[in-house]
Amino acid sequence: MNNFSKEVMHVGEMASGAALTVPVYRIKGDSDAPSVYIQANMHGAEVQGNAVIFQLLELLKNIDIKGNITLVPYANPVACNHKNGEYTLGRFDPITGVNWNRMYHFDESIIKPFVRDSIGKDDATIEANFKQLMIEKIEQKLEHNIFGLTTGQRIAYQLQRLAHQADLVLDLHTGPISSKHLYCPEYAQESAQYFDIPHTLLIPNEFGGALDEATFCPWWYLQEAFTELGIKFSISSKALNKESFTVELGSQEQIDLDVALDDAKSILAYLQYKGVIAAPEYQPQVMTRYGCYLKDYKAYYSPMGGMVDYLAEFGKPLAAGEPLARILRMDNYHFGTDDETENGGPLHYLSLDHEVLPILHFASASVNQGTELYKVFTNFFEL
Amino acid sequence: MNNFSKEVMHVGEMASGAALTVPVYRIKGDSDAPSVYIQANMHGAEVQGNAVIFQLLELLKNIDIKGNITLVPYANPVACNHKNGEYTLGRFDPITGVNWNRMYHFDESIIKPFVRDSIGKDDATIEANFKQLMIEKIEQKLEHNIFGLTTGQRIAYQLQRLAHQADLVLDLHTGPISSKHLYCPEYAQESAQYFDIPHTLLIPNEFGGALDEATFCPWWYLQEAFTELGIKFSISSKALNKESFTVELGSQEQIDLDVALDDAKSILAYLQYKGVIAAPEYQPQVMTRYGCYLKDYKAYYSPMGGMVDYLAEFGKPLAAGEPLARILRMDNYHFGTDDETENGGPLHYLSLDHEVLPILHFASASVNQGTELYKVFTNFFEL
Amino acid sequence: MNNFSKEVMHVGEMASGAALTVPVYRIKGDSDAPSVYIQANMHGAEVQGNAVIFQLLELLKNIDIKGNITLVPYANPVACNHKNGEYTLGRFDPITGVNWNRMYHFDESIIKPFVRDSIGKDDATIEANFKQLMIEKIEQKLEHNIFGLTTGQRIAYQLQRLAHQADLVLDLHTGPISSKHLYCPEYAQESAQYFDIPHTLLIPNEFGGALDEATFCPWWYLQEAFTELGIKFSISSKALNKESFTVELGSQEQIDLDVALDDAKSILAYLQYKGVIAAPEYQPQVMTRYGCYLKDYKAYYSPMGGMVDYLAEFGKPLAAGEPLARILRMDNYHFGTDDETENGGPLHYLSLDHEVLPILHFASASVNQGTELYKVFTNFFEL
Amino acid sequence: MNNFSKEVMHVGEMASGAALTVPVYRIKGDSDAPSVYIQANMHGAEVQGNAVIFQLLELLKNIDIKGNITLVPYANPVACNHKNGEYTLGRFDPITGVNWNRMYHFDESIIKPFVRDSIGKDDATIEANFKQLMIEKIEQKLEHNIFGLTTGQRIAYQLQRLAHQADLVLDLHTGPISSKHLYCPEYAQESAQYFDIPHTLLIPNEFGGALDEATFCPWWYLQEAFTELGIKFSISSKALNKESFTVELGSQEQIDLDVALDDAKSILAYLQYKGVIAAPEYQPQVMTRYGCYLKDYKAYYSPMGGMVDYLAEFGKPLAAGEPLARILRMDNYHFGTDDETENGGPLHYLSLDHEVLPILHFASASVNQGTELYKVFTNFFEL
Repeated sequence: MNNFSKEVMHVGEMASGAALTVPVYRIKGDSDAPSVYIQANMHGAEVQGNAVIFQLLELLKNIDIKGNITLVPYANPVACNHKNGEYTLGRFDPITGVNWNRMYHFDESIIKPFVRDSIGKDDATIEANFKQLMIEKIEQKLEHNIFGLTTGQRIAYQLQRLAHQADLVLDLHTGPISSKHLYCPEYAQESAQYFDIPHTLLIPNEFGGALDEATFCPWWYLQEAFTELGIKFSISSKALNKESFTVELGSQEQIDLDVALDDAKSILAYLQYKGVIAAPEYQPQVMTRYGCYLKDYKAYYSPMGGMVDYLAEFGKPLAAGEPLARILRMDNYHFGTDDETENGGPLHYLSLDHEVLPILHFASASVNQGTELYKVFTNFFEL
Repeated sequence: MNNFSKEVMHVGEMASGAALTVPVYRIKGDSDAPSVYIQANMHGAEVQGNAVIFQLLELLKNIDIKGNITLVPYANPVACNHKNGEYTLGRFDPITGVNWNRMYHFDESIIKPFVRDSIGKDDATIEANFKQLMIEKIEQKLEHNIFGLTTGQRIAYQLQRLAHQADLVLDLHTGPISSKHLYCPEYAQESAQYFDIPHTLLIPNEFGGALDEATFCPWWYLQEAFTELGIKFSISSKALNKESFTVELGSQEQIDLDVALDDAKSILAYLQYKGVIAAPEYQPQVMTRYGCYLKDYKAYYSPMGGMVDYLAEFGKPLAAGEPLARILRMDNYHFGTDDETENGGPLHYLSLDHEVLPILHFASASVNQGTELYKVFTNFFEL
Repeated sequence: MNNFSKEVMHVGEMASGAALTVPVYRIKGDSDAPSVYIQANMHGAEVQGNAVIFQLLELLKNIDIKGNITLVPYANPVACNHKNGEYTLGRFDPITGVNWNRMYHFDESIIKPFVRDSIGKDDATIEANFKQLMIEKIEQKLEHNIFGLTTGQRIAYQLQRLAHQADLVLDLHTGPISSKHLYCPEYAQESAQYFDIPHTLLIPNEFGGALDEATFCPWWYLQEAFTELGIKFSISSKALNKESFTVELGSQEQIDLDVALDDAKSILAYLQYKGVIAAPEYQPQVMTRYGCYLKDYKAYYSPMGGMVDYLAEFGKPLAAGEPLARILRMDNYHFGTDDETENGGPLHYLSLDHEVLPILHFASASVNQGTELYKVFTNFFEL
Repeated sequence: MNNFSKEVMHVGEMASGAALTVPVYRIKGDSDAPSVYIQANMHGAEVQGNAVIFQLLELLKNIDIKGNITLVPYANPVACNHKNGEYTLGRFDPITGVNWNRMYHFDESIIKPFVRDSIGKDDATIEANFKQLMIEKIEQKLEHNIFGLTTGQRIAYQLQRLAHQADLVLDLHTGPISSKHLYCPEYAQESAQYFDIPHTLLIPNEFGGALDEATFCPWWYLQEAFTELGIKFSISSKALNKESFTVELGSQEQIDLDVALDDAKSILAYLQYKGVIAAPEYQPQVMTRYGCYLKDYKAYYSPMGGMVDYLAEFGKPLAAGEPLARILRMDNYHFGTDDETENGGPLHYLSLDHEVLPILHFASASVNQGTELYKVFTNFFEL
C-alpha cells in the first residue's frame, strides 16, 4: 500500500525536555478530487475521534481513494496526557486556562489586498494562490516571532498548516455528556444531510479561534469580498468545494470501537458524496435531522448550587415547563410541614418556558450556582 | 414529627474564612433497639449516597422507628465542592494527596488496659464503657493537640465521634464506574444477605484508616482480647450487635433519585433485619450474591499507556483468556503487512489467565502505563 | 465610628449548598468629594490586596474622610479557596478556564442613545444619569436572564454594581513573581505620579472584560461620543473625575503586612490628591517612574521546554543581548567535546535584540515550550 | 572522557503513547572505592537537584574519580511535567494522590532467611550476595506481576534497581519554602558533619516507602539480625559503608545555578570524606549544625483558615511564645472598640509554648484550617 504514509510531527517540549509529537497519516488519492483533513483529540478528554480515525484507516484500506486524505489522531498531546484525579483535564491549557480550540489564526486583513491582486485570474489560480497565502501566513507565525508563541499556538498552527492544504476539514470532538451533533457553516447546510448525525448547528461567518472557522471563514470572506465587487467566486461550487465541520461524536472520556465504526461509515458517506472516495456503498442513513442557528444554541446555567439528576433526554423536543433536571439540596431538608417549602426544600425542578431540544449536559452531578447545566437548541427546525 | 431533628456541624474553615458545615439529621427511636449511623459523600465525587439519604428520610417519615438513626449527607464539604475541570476532585485532599477515607483514628493500645479493667463486668457495662472510651479518645484528638490537626482529620474525627455513638455504621460510597458492592467484616457475613447488593468483600480485622474499620475493628479487637482470656464477649450477639459496612452504590459523579429509592429500600431491609425499624414490608431481594476475601480483590494495572475500550461486564464471571479491555494506540498504526505487529500494532486485547468477576473500572478511557484499569474478584464464591 | 459599616454580600453557592459571601466595608465621607471603590483578590492567589485593605482600614480610622470609600477584600471566594496542591489555582474558573477578571460587562451600544438623550443637560445630571444607567444595565444582567449567569458573571456583576457607584476604582492584583506596576488609562497618566509604583502601563479605550476597563471605558466612550458632537464633557475634570486602575502589588501567594502598610500609604497619597481624604501627610515618594503603552508590553514565551534560572532583575533596563534567563536541559548533557553543542547542550541563555524593562516572570522554574517566561516593557519612557 | 557514559531509561508511557524517559549519567571510578547513586526531582516541583547534578558533572570532569558515580536528574518525568495553573503539581500522583516518594520497595521478610544462609561467610561475600538479592527482588517486582504495577511503582523500582548497586545514596529533594536540611540515618550521624547543611534529622530504622529508607533500612535490618546472633556485621565500617540521605536543598519551584554550585561542592566534600573521589580541596564548611530526632520533628497545622504572614525565620531558635506567623482574617474586621475582639478580630498571632527551630513553611499564604503551616525541630541539639 504505497499510497499510505506516516510521519511524526514535533509540536512541543515539556519541562523535562520530553518531546511532544503527533502522528500524521496520509493517503494519496489517484485523482484531483477534493482533499480532506481529519483530526481528533484537540481537547484532551475527547478521545472517541481517535477510534474513528482507527476505523477510517481500516475501512480505507479497501476503498478506491480519489482525493488526498490526511488523518491526525492525538492532535494535542499536552491535553490528552493531562490528568487531574481520574479525569483528563483537557479543554484548556492547565497553565493559562485558554481553550485549546480557540488558538487558531485568521487575520481578516489579508482578504482585501488579495482580492485586489486576484481580479481577472481564474478560479483555480485564485484557489491555489489563496491556499498558498494562508499557509505562508501560518508559517510566518510559526517561524518569525521574536517573542515566541504560546504552547497552544505552536500546536494549533502546525495542525492548521496541514488543514489549509485540504479542501474539506473535519475536526472530531465530543461534548461532555452529549448527543451527536455537527457544527456546519450556513452555506454548507446541504452537506449536513450526509452525516448520520441528527443535530446540526448552522454557524455564521465569524472567526472565534476554532479550527473549523479558521479554515472555512477565510474562504467565505473571500467569496464575500469578490461578491462585493460583483465577481462570482463560489466556494460551494464543485470546483472549489471548501467546507469545514466540527463533528461532535457524543460523550467525552470514552472509547467505543463499535460506535466508532458507525461514525467512520458516516464520514465515508460524506466523503463519497464529495467525491473524495469512490465507494457508493457508503450512503447516509435516513433520519430526522434537526437544525438550529448558532445564535439560538443556548447554554442554561444552574440557578443554584446542588446535585443534579439530569432528566431531559437528548434529541427529543422538550415541551415548555417540562423538567430539564432536578436539583437535590440535602442541606435544606425539613421535617415539619410548615418548613417544607423554606428555601424551596430539598428538591428543585428546573424547566424553561418554551420548547427546546436538549443536546448535551454537564459531566458531573455536582454543580455550583452558575455551572453550565445543559445546552439546548431553541427555535430549531427540521433540516 | 418531633422525633426528628437537624443540627449543623462546623467542620472547618477555608482561606477566606468561609465556614465548612455538615448537616446532621437525627431520628429518635422509641426503644433501646440498635442505633445506626449513616453518612454519605466523604469522597467528593461519590454523591449518590446523598440521594439515598434523601429517600431514606422520605421513607422513614412513615415507618415505626425503634432505634436511633443519624444521617449525615455531604460529610466532606471540602471534597464535594472541589472541582478541577468539570469533575469533582474528591478522593484525596487536593493539597496533600491523602485519601479522605484514610484519616479516621484507632489506637489499638487502648484495648489491653480496657479489657484488664473490664474483667467481671457485664456485657452492657463493658459496651457502654467502651463506647465512652472511644468517644473520649476522639475528643482528645479533637481538642488537645498543641500542633493541631490536618484538615481531613478535623472532619473525620467529628464524623467518627457521631459514628461511635451508634451500633451499626453505614458509610455510603461509590466506585469510579462500578457495580454495587459491599465491604463487610468477615464476622458479619450473614448480614450481607440483607442488602440488595450482589457483591460482597469480606474484610479482616486490620485497621487502615477507613470509617468502617475505625468503627468495627475496635470491637473486634475487644472481642479477641476477651477471647484470649477465655472470656466470651460476642459483638455479633443480639445484645451487642456491632457492624459497619462501606456500601458502594455504583458509579461516581451521578445522582439518580429513582435508583436511590431502590438503595434506600435495600438499607431499610437491613435495618428491619436488625430491628432498628419495625417495617416488615422491607425485605431483601432474592439474588445471587458473590463473596470474595479482601486479599483476593485484585487491581489490574494497565500494562501500557493508551485509550481503553472497557469490555468486561460487571458482575458476570469472566473466563480465563477472555478480554477485560482493548487498548487503542493510534501512534502505532501501520500500513504494511510486515510492520503490522511492530509494537503490537494499534489494538491490544488485555486478559487474565484465570476466571475473575469484574467489579469496577477506571473512570476515563485515557490511561497511563500503570493506571488501575479494573478491580476484580478472584477466588470468588456464592455467599 | 458610625460612619463605618459592614455588610456581607451573597455571591454564589457551591454544590453542597455552601454560600459564597464577600464582606463589604463602607466608610461615609462628610462631603461630596469623589468616592472610591477598592477591591482585592479577584484572582485567588493574589492575596496581598487583602492586607492592603486591612492597613487602609487601620489608617483610615484616624483620617478625615471627605468622599465615600467602599472596600471589598476576598472579592472572589471561589477562586481564593481553590487549591491544587499547595498553591491557589485562582486566575481562572477551574471548571471553564475563563479568567475571572474577564467577565465584567460593558455594552458599547448604550452610549449613542444615551448621548442623544443627554444633549442640553448639565454635566452633573449627565453624570448621575449615566451612573444610574450603568447600574441598571448590570442589575438587568443579574436579575433578568432566563438562561442564567455563569458563576463568574454572578460574582463580577455584583462587584461591578458596587464599583459603578464610585468615581474612582482601584482593583488590587498581583503578578506571578512581579515588580509593582500600574494599569492606568491613557487619559489619567498624571495620576500615576501619585502612586509609589515605578512602572505604569498606559491603556487605551478598549474593553476586554476587566474591572478597570468596565468602569473607565464607558465614561471614556461617553466623552468621545460627546466630542464627536462637538460637546465638551471631560471625565478628567475636577467635577467628574472618573479613573480606574489595576494596581499590581508585587508577587502572588504572599501576605506581607509591613509591605502592605507601604502600599496603603501609596493609595492614600492618591486619595489625598483626589480629595477623597483630607490628610496632606500622605504624599507620593520621589522616584523614577517608567511608562509604556499597552501595545508595547510584551510577553516573551519560552522557545524551549526546560528549567529556568531567571536572571533579569525587575525594573532595571536590560540591554539588548543581555540574558533574561538561562534554561537548563539536563537531558542534553554531553561529555565529549564534539557533542558539546548538539541540541545546544545543557545550558541555554535567552536574550532579546533590543532593550527592555523586565516587569514580571513566571512563577515556576519548570516551563514547557511556549510558557510565558517574562513580561517586559519595550519602548518605555520616563513618565 | 571515556569513563563517562549516558543512557536513557524508559520508565513509562502516557495515554498518547508518549514514552517517559529518564537520563542516567555514569562515571566509572578507577578503584574499588565506595560507589554512589544520586538522583533528583522525584517530586515534580523539587527541581534544584537537577541543577546540582549539572554542577556536579561539571566539577567531576576535573576530579580524580575512585568509585563509580551514577547521576539521575529528572527522576520522575510524570511529576516534573505536570502543571496545574502555573505550578508543578508534583508531590503525588495526580490520579491516585499517592506520594511519589512512598512507592519504593522493601520486604523485611527476606532478612532472616538470608542471614541464616550467610552464617560463616565473609563480609564481602555477604555484601555482594545481599546487593544481588535486593536487585533480584526488585526485578521480580518489575517483571513478574500478572496484575501489573502502578505508574509510580514502575518508576520507583527502576530507580531503586540503580540505587541498590551503589553503597551511598543521595536523593535530592527540596521543601516547599524551606531551609536546607538533611535526613540522615541515626547510625550515620557522623557523616552529617560533611555536608554544608545546618539542620539534620536523625531517622530510625523504619521503612515508610522513601528511597533513602529503601536503601539503608535493609542493611540496617541485616546488621541487627546478625547482631542478634552475636555476629558482627557493621554497615558503618570502612569496608561496607552503607549510607543513604535525603538532601533537602531549600525551596521548590526554583532553579539557581549559583546556589547549585555551592550544593555540589558540599556533596563533593562528603564524597571526598567517603573516598569516592580524591579531591582534598573539597572540605565541609565550619558551621553550627543542629540535629533532631525524627520523632521530634513536628508539623504545626493551622488552627484556622486565613491568609498567613510567615514571621519565623528558618534555622534560628524561636523562643516559646514568639510568633511563628500571623493570620489575617479580613472577614472579621470590626470597627467598634467593643467588637474588636469578636472572633479574635482580623489578626491572629500564632505561637508555641516551647522553643522550636523552624525548618520550613507552607508555600502559599492562603491556608485552610488544618493546613500544615510550619515544620519545626523540637528538642533539637548541636551535632
